[in-house]
Formats: sequence, C-alpha cells, structure tokens
Amino acid sequence: MSTTSRRDFLQHASIGVLAAAALAPPAGAVEPASPRGPATTDVHTPVPLPFAAKSLKGISERLIQSHWENNYVGAVKALNVIRGRLGDAVADAALAPYIYTGLKREQLLRTGSVVLHEYYFANLGGDGNAGAAVRSRIATSFGTFDAWEAEFRKIGAGLAGGSGWVMLGFNRHLGLLENYWLGDHATAPADTAPVLVMDMYEHAYQMDYGAAAAKYIDAFFANIRWDAVAARLTG
Amino acid sequence: MSTTSRRDFLQHASIGVLAAAALAPPAGAVEPASPRGPATTDVHTPVPLPFAAKSLKGISERLIQSHWENNYVGAVKALNVIRGRLGDAVADAALAPYIYTGLKREQLLRTGSVVLHEYYFANLGGDGNAGAAVRSRIATSFGTFDAWEAEFRKIGAGLAGGSGWVMLGFNRHLGLLENYWLGDHATAPADTAPVLVMDMYEHAYQMDYGAAAAKYIDAFFANIRWDAVAARLTG
Amino acid sequence: MSTTSRRDFLQHASIGVLAAAALAPPAGAVEPASPRGPATTDVHTPVPLPFAAKSLKGISERLIQSHWENNYVGAVKALNVIRGRLGDAVADAALAPYIYTGLKREQLLRTGSVVLHEYYFANLGGDGNAGAAVRSRIATSFGTFDAWEAEFRKIGAGLAGGSGWVMLGFNRHLGLLENYWLGDHATAPADTAPVLVMDMYEHAYQMDYGAAAAKYIDAFFANIRWDAVAARLTG
Amino acid sequence: MSTTSRRDFLQHASIGVLAAAALAPPAGAVEPASPRGPATTDVHTPVPLPFAAKSLKGISERLIQSHWENNYVGAVKALNVIRGRLGDAVADAALAPYIYTGLKREQLLRTGSVVLHEYYFANLGGDGNAGAAVRSRIATSFGTFDAWEAEFRKIGAGLAGGSGWVMLGFNRHLGLLENYWLGDHATAPADTAPVLVMDMYEHAYQMDYGAAAAKYIDAFFANIRWDAVAARLTG
Repeated sequence: MSTTSRRDFLQHASIGVLAAAALAPPAGAVEPASPRGPATTDVHTPVPLPFAAKSLKGISERLIQSHWENNYVGAVKALNVIRGRLGDAVADAALAPYIYTGLKREQLLRTGSVVLHEYYFANLGGDGNAGAAVRSRIATSFGTFDAWEAEFRKIGAGLAGGSGWVMLGFNRHLGLLENYWLGDHATAPADTAPVLVMDMYEHAYQMDYGAAAAKYIDAFFANIRWDAVAARLTG
Repeated sequence: MSTTSRRDFLQHASIGVLAAAALAPPAGAVEPASPRGPATTDVHTPVPLPFAAKSLKGISERLIQSHWENNYVGAVKALNVIRGRLGDAVADAALAPYIYTGLKREQLLRTGSVVLHEYYFANLGGDGNAGAAVRSRIATSFGTFDAWEAEFRKIGAGLAGGSGWVMLGFNRHLGLLENYWLGDHATAPADTAPVLVMDMYEHAYQMDYGAAAAKYIDAFFANIRWDAVAARLTG
Repeated sequence: MSTTSRRDFLQHASIGVLAAAALAPPAGAVEPASPRGPATTDVHTPVPLPFAAKSLKGISERLIQSHWENNYVGAVKALNVIRGRLGDAVADAALAPYIYTGLKREQLLRTGSVVLHEYYFANLGGDGNAGAAVRSRIATSFGTFDAWEAEFRKIGAGLAGGSGWVMLGFNRHLGLLENYWLGDHATAPADTAPVLVMDMYEHAYQMDYGAAAAKYIDAFFANIRWDAVAARLTG
Repeated sequence: MSTTSRRDFLQHASIGVLAAAALAPPAGAVEPASPRGPATTDVHTPVPLPFAAKSLKGISERLIQSHWENNYVGAVKALNVIRGRLGDAVADAALAPYIYTGLKREQLLRTGSVVLHEYYFANLGGDGNAGAAVRSRIATSFGTFDAWEAEFRKIGAGLAGGSGWVMLGFNRHLGLLENYWLGDHATAPADTAPVLVMDMYEHAYQMDYGAAAAKYIDAFFANIRWDAVAARLTG
C-alpha cells in the first residue's frame, strides 16, 4: 500500500476531518432537478488493507485476507446494491412502508459493517504498545488503563461464539469515553465516535483459533496500532 | 426555561463543540489510584424541556410532559443506576462475561434513549418552516427536499405501531447525509451525527392520536425547529 | 360474537388440535405443478375479539377496539401483503439473498404479531380468578403461584415504556413451564407453546394509562380468562 | 452412542411426545413450601452427538466436535448458570426490573441456542435423500419440493457472514409449514415446531470452509437425516 493511499485512508477514517467541508452547502446551490442524490446514488469504494496481510502477529494472512475480501468487501458490494434499490423503492409511492423499512434495515446493517470494518482494519497493524499519553487519557475515564482493558476484554468474551463488536467510543453528546457492547452491525451508541473497535463476529477468529476466542483477543491486543487510536482521540 | 439554560442545552446537543476539550488529556495527568472513572461513576442530569410544554401545535402538554418526565427522565435514572452496577460488576472478576454483557446491553439501550430523546426535544419547539439554506443542503443529498421528506415520513410510517426512531444523520465516516431506520434505542449507524430525529415509540403519540401515527408525523413536522437542525448541519 | 365463531377461535388458538390433521400428507398426493403453495399464498383472516369490547375492567372499549383494529388487523393485512411479495421474490433467482432476507424478517415480525395478538385477546375477557388446578400446576414450576406472578409482573415492568411481550410458555423441547421476556414480535423461545401472553407494546396501555404501565398490568391480571389458560396447559 | 440413548434423544427432540405427561398436574399436588421450582432450578444435561463425529460428509470431525463441545455445551453451561442467578434475582424485590430483564434476555438467548442446537445435531447424520412422503408433504406447502429448497438455501445465503438460523417449521397456530429467517438464538416464530434447522452462525462452517458458506450449505444438505425430519412432521 502506497504512502499516499495510506494517508488518504487515515484521513478518511479520522474523526471529522472532512466533515466541515462536506456539510457546507455548495455556493449558489439551487434545488437540483433530479430527484436523486448521494443518499441513493453513492457508490462506496473498498479501502485496501492498511497493512501487509502477512504482517500481523497471531492472525494469519489467510484469515485477514478472507476477512477483508469476503466480509468487508462483500458488505461494500451489498451496500452499493441496496442503495440503488432504495432509490427505486422510495420513488414508488405505492410501496408499503413496512416493505420499505425491510430494505432500510438491510442498509443500516451493511452501513455498520462497512464503517466498523474500516475502523477495525485501521486500528490493526501496530505493535500493541500504548503510549503514555493514550494510556493516561483512557485511565482518566476508566480509573486505570488496566480497568479499561479488563472491561474491553470481558465484553469480547461475552460476545464469543456469536456476533458483534466491542467499541471504545467517545460519546460526543454525553462527553464520555466508554466501552460499548454492540450485538451486531446495526447496533451502536448514537452520536459516538469510534476510537478502538474489535470485531467479535466469528469470521474474525474461527479460521485461526476455532472457538478459542480468548486467544484471538490476545492476538488483537498484540496488533493494536495505538498511534491510530491516539489520533482518533485527539481528532 | 431561561435563556441561559437554553443556550447551554443547545451547546450540549450540538456536534462536537465540547469534544476537543473533553478529549484533550489533562496536563500532567498521572494514572489515578482509583480503579474507577466517569465511565462507571458519571451521573447524568436530565435536561429540561427546551420549550414550554404547552407551546407545541398538535402535541398536547399532557403528552409531551409525560414523554419528558416518564420516558426520558426514566431513562436517565435507569442509566445512572446501571452505570453504578457496572462499576461493581466489572470489579468482580469471577462474574461470567455473558452475565456482564446483559448489563452492558441495558446500558446501551438507556444511553441511546437518553441521547436520542435530548436530540428530539431540542429539534422541537419551532415553526416547522425550513429556511432556504437548510433546504438546499438537504436537497444536495437527496435530490430534492421533498424527496428527503418523503423518505423520512415513509420510514416513520413503517415504524408505526411499534418502536424506534427515524434519524436524518450525517455519517461522519462515509461523508453522507442519510435517513436511517432505527428499530430501538440500541440501534444506530456507527459514527453518525444526528441532525433531525423523530421518536416513533408509541409514547410519542398514542395519548394524543391513538394508532393514527400519520397525524403525529404531521404534527412533528409542524413543530420542527429548523434553526437547531441547521446548527447541527454546520456544527 | 356468536357461540360458533367463539368455539372456532378457541380451537384455532389451542395447542395442536389441528396439527395432526394439517401435518398428514393428503392421500395420493403428487407433486403439484404450480410452484406455489400456502407458504406463499395463504391469506389470513382476522379473528374477531372473543369478548365484548366494552366488557373489560380497567381497559377501555376505545383502547381495546383500537388495539384489535389497528395493531392486530393491521398486522394481518401486512402479513398477507408480505406473503404475496415473497412469492414473487423467491421466484426471482437473480434477487440478492440479503434483499430477500429483509422481506423474510418483515414476515417473521408480522407473523409474531398476528400469533401473539390472537393468544392475547383469547386470554382476556375473564374474571381474573385462577382455579386451584391451574394455580397448582404453575406452582409446581415456580415454587409458588405468587413467585410466578411476581416474575411475570417484573418482566412486564422491565418492558414498560418500550415494546415486547411477556409470555408464560411451555417449552416443549425442554419440558419446562417458564416465563419469557420477548423484546419484540420477532423474539420468542424456540419450540414453545404460549400459555399466557401479555402485550407490553405501548399501544396496549398508553391510551388509558399513559406511562403508568403498572396500572395496566393490574388491569391485565383482573381480566385474565384463566379457563383459556388452563385449556392451553392441558391441550 | 448407544441405541438406547439415541432413542431417548429422539423422543426428547420430537414434538409433543412428552408434553401431555409433563403438563398434567401431579396427583394430589399441594402448593410447595419452597419458593422455587424447575423454572429457576432446572439443570440441563448436554445431549451427546447423535452420530459419530467423523461420519459426516464434508463437515470435519474437528469442526463438528468443536461445535458440539464449545458452542452447544457452552450454551448449556451458561443457561444453567443464568437459571441459578435468576432464582436469586427474582427473590430480590428491590432489584430494578430493567436489570432483571437483562438477565432474562440472556436466558432467552441461551435457551434458543440449546434448543436449536439439539434440533440441528438431531437432523444431521443422514444420507441427504428425502423420501417420497416427506417430499410430497413439503411440496404441498411450497408448491414443489425444489421451491422449498430454493427458499431455504436463499435464506441461508442471506445469513452468510453473520449469525442466525434457517428453520423449516410448522406454525402450530397458523397451521402452516413455512421457512423462517432467524437472526440470532433469541429470534423465533411464536408457537412453532421446528422441523429442519440449519445453523448459520459462522462456527458452523468457518473452520472448514472459511467464508464459503454456499459450500457448507451443500454439505448440510448432503447430511440431512430425513427420517428424523419426517418423524417431526408426523409427531
């Protein structure tokens, strides 16, 4: 992966860097004639793995490559298809709302999968050593860094054998840095910036560790890229 | 409600105003001796209704007061109780992870309820007239303002008779302004700033409209405070 | 409601009375030429309220009528529409599976709503006095009848302000009579015969009691038709 | 596995065989002094795999053994622990209902996992050839046997990469034989007897097939024990 695309990815994944620009109404904008816009026409492009697939410790190249290609890129493709169908469906005024919401739920599920996977891959590829500043910041919220890590791991253990994510997130509305249990891709705390996310769907570890999720959690911690986490905290 | 507290509330509800300060590690911070911090000790204080309860058009004082007092404040109280129990539970290393995650799910559910209700009340109390800038910004994403409104209402109709929220949100990671279907308080798109939220739990309308959710949606639109929405878009 | 339709309804709602007949392959059956059958063509007919709408104690005619007409009959209509669309969708081999499952989830949601509402209305309309035999049977599973009632009510209180059902059910596979928390219409214990169900969606009480769900639970208990419950236990 | 334990298992898994006996109040029963009964004291014993672990075609001994031991037996253990805690929790009148329901949800999740896994293992170990009677019975509901199979597989494909189950079930209340999408262990159609269930959690295939869920679905079909399915249909 080139330095350039890596930088692009990190900018993309960071909190709010592009937000101000994207929110600004274009100068002199007028109501477009077309009844569609990015909300139903956007096509998402998969982000490459931001590290060499064979470089992780305790997570095999085969697994991480399959995870990226099948689960993440698969979610991107599904999201693109669903978005297109939504454009058709919303234009059909006769379509029953409870049919339409079936599609919207699928959109939400794939959106969560795409966003969380991009955060996940971007917080892997490091050496697992958290610097003093980030340890201190986390300790400020959880009492100690170890208390934070114990809870983060415990949530992961509780999700083992099923699906979901563990998220250390900054709840922008409450002003709190907290760990969250997410049961699936459609679950999340409202208005929260992800800081560190751990995939607990079984595709994240079964191929390497079978049902031994605790070993995967160890491997995850050994590969955390703490500089990316720190950047999200100060982003 | 005084001008001052109103301003405080709006600042609190706006996107990211306080985030930078909250994220900065305190100067000279050292690892605290106590194994607890705000993640398990925070006590949330209910935010007063940011408008006179009797001032809404088509939503009765009795309903909005009950909504605020019973559903919103009830969620605040439950969240505070749960947070306290989490502190005890995480310190109990012998507690099975699948018991702990039961508590974490309840925390997520109440967190969503608190955050979304605060956004909801803060985007009510207006005259329902969207200004040209906000209409234009929304049209940029949805093709036309009317196309946006049609989808937003359709999602609401699909949730009628059950539970959930409709959210116009800015997905910070994807850089997209989209409408989302949320099936309950624990459902949300990851990394998304709420811009306009409509409560579709039946406590938002049954008392006034019975099962006639469409009339409630009309009333909701007539009371949208578009300046608050616009501030969130440019926040 | 006539004696005849009431009998039909009770037979329909009882456990397994019609099952043996329905499961028997028709004599001399051959593979039908048509690629459709009841799984995509069935049209469900709403079951009338099995009691006079004005006869309940503490639950108003207006509420129970709206509950039946809007929430229950609404679910029947939605289910019929969805079933028809499923027939079209499954025949479209090119339809992406993740689009199809969006429809199947909506089918499950409406199926649960229809089935549980029919059980609910059929266990209302009584005097709330449980006979000795049913009390004894319940006590056998829960220690005492009061212990059962305390848990049933507590689950209801935990669902207040949101959505879901409380079910006393006989888990046919485990051979246990248990109380279950159901978060929405699509949630249920597998292979379990409902014995007593209480609707905790807010449409079951908001119109009469606002957010005071505990008063509704009292009213529910005062109207339980225990002979119907007993018949389900021995069915 | 001995012939005797195998027969016991099948009887246990069959529909309703034991139900009548279990529902009958014991002769001369009196209200027990103890405030507990099976609903909080039952201890479930894992059912052995009803076939040799190495006997499946295209599903490895390692995978099926891990599936049985870690996922299924793990769920049994968790359920037993949770049931014990429920007994303590319900006796604590001061415990907030929304804390209690967190436990009840975990109970429901493990109950579903235990019941569905026992049905799953019991419908594997066969040669995958459906007899004429069962094909005819299924065709009666779905138009053709192939139409049934196509929908069953499509639901499985829609769940690939995530969690959940596909269930062919006899909805006892509606009198319909239908395929159902179940998103997780806590999801099910009310009052429905499982007839054929396919596990789509990733632990059912990742170890052998990685993300290639379609190959697992082929292997599942090649191992269906259709006599067990037929027995459930006529049970």
